[in-house]
Amino acid sequence: MSKQISLNVFTMNCVGHLNGGLWRHPSDQAYRYKDLDYWVELALIAERGKLDAIFLADVLGMYDTYGGNADASIREAMQTPVNDPLLIISAMAYATQHLGFATTHSTTYIQPYLLARKFSTLDHLTKGRVAWNIVTSYLPHAAKNLGLDDLLPHDERYARADEYLEVLYKLWEESWDEDAVIRDVEKGVFTDPSKVHKINHIGKYFKVPGPHVCEPSPQRTPVLYQAGQSSKGRDFAAKHAEAVFTMYPTKDLVEDYIKDIRQRARNFGRNPDNIKIIPGFVPIVGETEEVAQAKYEAYKKFSSYDAALAHTGGATGIDFSQYQPTQVIADIKTEAHQGMLGIFARSTPGSASKHVRDWTMEEIAKTAALGSFMPVVVGTPDKIADWIEEWSSIGADGFNITELEHSGTVRDFVEMVVPVLQKRGIFRTEYKYKDLRSRLYQREQAHLPEDHPARTIVKEVVQ
Amino acid sequence: MSKQISLNVFTMNCVGHLNGGLWRHPSDQAYRYKDLDYWVELALIAERGKLDAIFLADVLGMYDTYGGNADASIREAMQTPVNDPLLIISAMAYATQHLGFATTHSTTYIQPYLLARKFSTLDHLTKGRVAWNIVTSYLPHAAKNLGLDDLLPHDERYARADEYLEVLYKLWEESWDEDAVIRDVEKGVFTDPSKVHKINHIGKYFKVPGPHVCEPSPQRTPVLYQAGQSSKGRDFAAKHAEAVFTMYPTKDLVEDYIKDIRQRARNFGRNPDNIKIIPGFVPIVGETEEVAQAKYEAYKKFSSYDAALAHTGGATGIDFSQYQPTQVIADIKTEAHQGMLGIFARSTPGSASKHVRDWTMEEIAKTAALGSFMPVVVGTPDKIADWIEEWSSIGADGFNITELEHSGTVRDFVEMVVPVLQKRGIFRTEYKYKDLRSRLYQREQAHLPEDHPARTIVKEVVQ
Repeated sequence: MSKQISLNVFTMNCVGHLNGGLWRHPSDQAYRYKDLDYWVELALIAERGKLDAIFLADVLGMYDTYGGNADASIREAMQTPVNDPLLIISAMAYATQHLGFATTHSTTYIQPYLLARKFSTLDHLTKGRVAWNIVTSYLPHAAKNLGLDDLLPHDERYARADEYLEVLYKLWEESWDEDAVIRDVEKGVFTDPSKVHKINHIGKYFKVPGPHVCEPSPQRTPVLYQAGQSSKGRDFAAKHAEAVFTMYPTKDLVEDYIKDIRQRARNFGRNPDNIKIIPGFVPIVGETEEVAQAKYEAYKKFSSYDAALAHTGGATGIDFSQYQPTQVIADIKTEAHQGMLGIFARSTPGSASKHVRDWTMEEIAKTAALGSFMPVVVGTPDKIADWIEEWSSIGADGFNITELEHSGTVRDFVEMVVPVLQKRGIFRTEYKYKDLRSRLYQREQAHLPEDHPARTIVKEVVQ
Repeated sequence: MSKQISLNVFTMNCVGHLNGGLWRHPSDQAYRYKDLDYWVELALIAERGKLDAIFLADVLGMYDTYGGNADASIREAMQTPVNDPLLIISAMAYATQHLGFATTHSTTYIQPYLLARKFSTLDHLTKGRVAWNIVTSYLPHAAKNLGLDDLLPHDERYARADEYLEVLYKLWEESWDEDAVIRDVEKGVFTDPSKVHKINHIGKYFKVPGPHVCEPSPQRTPVLYQAGQSSKGRDFAAKHAEAVFTMYPTKDLVEDYIKDIRQRARNFGRNPDNIKIIPGFVPIVGETEEVAQAKYEAYKKFSSYDAALAHTGGATGIDFSQYQPTQVIADIKTEAHQGMLGIFARSTPGSASKHVRDWTMEEIAKTAALGSFMPVVVGTPDKIADWIEEWSSIGADGFNITELEHSGTVRDFVEMVVPVLQKRGIFRTEYKYKDLRSRLYQREQAHLPEDHPARTIVKEVVQ
């Protein structure tokens, strides 16, 4: 049997995620994000397509760099308003049997003891179908509203997150023995107290005596997602993550990233195959090439310059409003120029015909609006499947299907592309494993594998 | 038409709430608390009975006073393990149309900006069916695991909570104008930025510039529940709460409380009728008196001395393990004695035949195990209805139906008592209002009324 790929829906509990301006598209349903029916519909489509999970991004504040305020983000509903992603999961879990739910949660604004309970609860409620996308939060607007004067310095955020994970591993993996809950009516013992342990964590950032307040959930630790890009971030991912997702535009960049992250994983004593690489991409599929291209043109038509640059500016700290749409990147002679080149001048996305340095701001915005520089793959189901096979061949283990049109992107993919992938033998025709981790590893592996650093941390505690 | 009462289910996302030891009862289903089906079943029963809401209690740590450790709480599943209550709501909301959800959340361990988003999200997802039970958290075990060395002093917790509410009112009531979201495709405006305002809160405890990240939800501010008992707590409730719930054993005490809280409300310039009083009680109902009494005897049989005193001890800070079961309260000559008397010597619960000072520890524990000193009303549907009418006549606006047997207590109530209440014309036969606040006030009142202090606070901001 060929290698089997993973497939997630990549979306967010808001109107505009990485599709600036597309709320104007007449088919876009994202304005219904406040409605549980909307989410359950999406979950049912995804489960019909045997997809692995719905992956929910999140931010805790607004993008307020563009023009020095959040007006463009607000006007264009660019990740604003944004609702809590955790709170929609139980409805989707109730309506489905197999689909997983990967959700973003920051380590910066909540004590680990509370976060531990949230994910234990979700893992119980979903019967082991939950993943956590670990972020340290990058928006200054969020920091300022959440009790900090500004963002914590980048490296400190990661040092703190590292200890944070240590606390969580102790709570999730060690605090309750597997057979602690016995519900023995005769003996009058629901839980055996000798099998519930304090963790007595005293670190630089956290003091957590424990025990955890939750009994062991099916996966104990949720599947760990991460997307570190900086050197610190990549080390963090290589140490902790079981799946990393990328947003690189080209195959070369992903290939470099895979090599790098797997080498870093080896440095942490891990089996590099236990980190799954999940690039994001935007499939635009049609029954014919013409239909697909027409969809693409419509998306382009509704994309918003301001929305795209408000988002990209917020994510990079560059106020793009100072430039004219006709401004060519290479002609900008400021520090921001260097910043932009650092971010975008990786090489050109698949469909572009000239080097990114020669792009105008208009071209940057158009690309940012349609999937934030991730590959946009337009064509027939077979063409999309070819692309997937090509990227799989360089070591990608799965893909995040990024929504441009809610929920049309996913529906089209499930109806047209999934059958082709199944026919080619690279994607499941039935769900096989009960929990999300086993599905990711493609073997019975409900708990963290033996080579994961959590095992060493917990062992040190127990001894 | 007679005065209409409110009715909530009072429960918790755990095995043992206020029913120590009853997990042993063969019909008790609470061990299924990890299962969404369990919660949806409960919600459907409650909605079938046209109840107002499911009210979810919560704690963030363990009761570890009894014997100086949490062993008894763990052994007896006494609010341990305990899962997150917010995360079960969307599944229940998806499965129902009308039922409300009141959930506890502490103000002590989360920034108001984050809490604002949680409740805005829930209010959107439930289409205006959510209430927040405001607590400041009383367990030292939680404090120690959540970054504090110990509990904040009681009065400071309330001062901080008061400012916390001020921040929330600004975010919920003032930050987004009602017509901010216009979704105007032609103009390219999803939200009009001139109608989204910063709140610029700078206080003693919090600095929150805003704006809120959520668009206005149906109720904006969730219905505000509180249960302050101390003088500071009562003032807090009188100022902020729209519904207060009590756990007093006798009518006299509730009557005193109602007078006191309504007077305090007047002192805050509020219409005292805009604070609804919701005593908790435990109905044990049977087709005949004999059936009801037999159920009661079975509950008593399965109640646990340790569980009851672990909970009561944790809530009062008294280690009851130092006393023998035969110890008579009046004979205890220690400081703890005074503490206990202060707590229980209100007068005797309905069914008791002697003054609480003459009770043994055994009697205290038996009473604590069956609803933590709330009235236990045993009998036929008519007898329960009589009791409800009697307590309504002293000014109670509704009742929290406290579960002893999950979900039997609620099922019995819905099947046998609700029809009697409906026949007597004191309880709705159909849901009338869409949002929970209107249901509580029994008039169209989706938003906080004009006399609520939030209005003044917000007005001061705007001017």
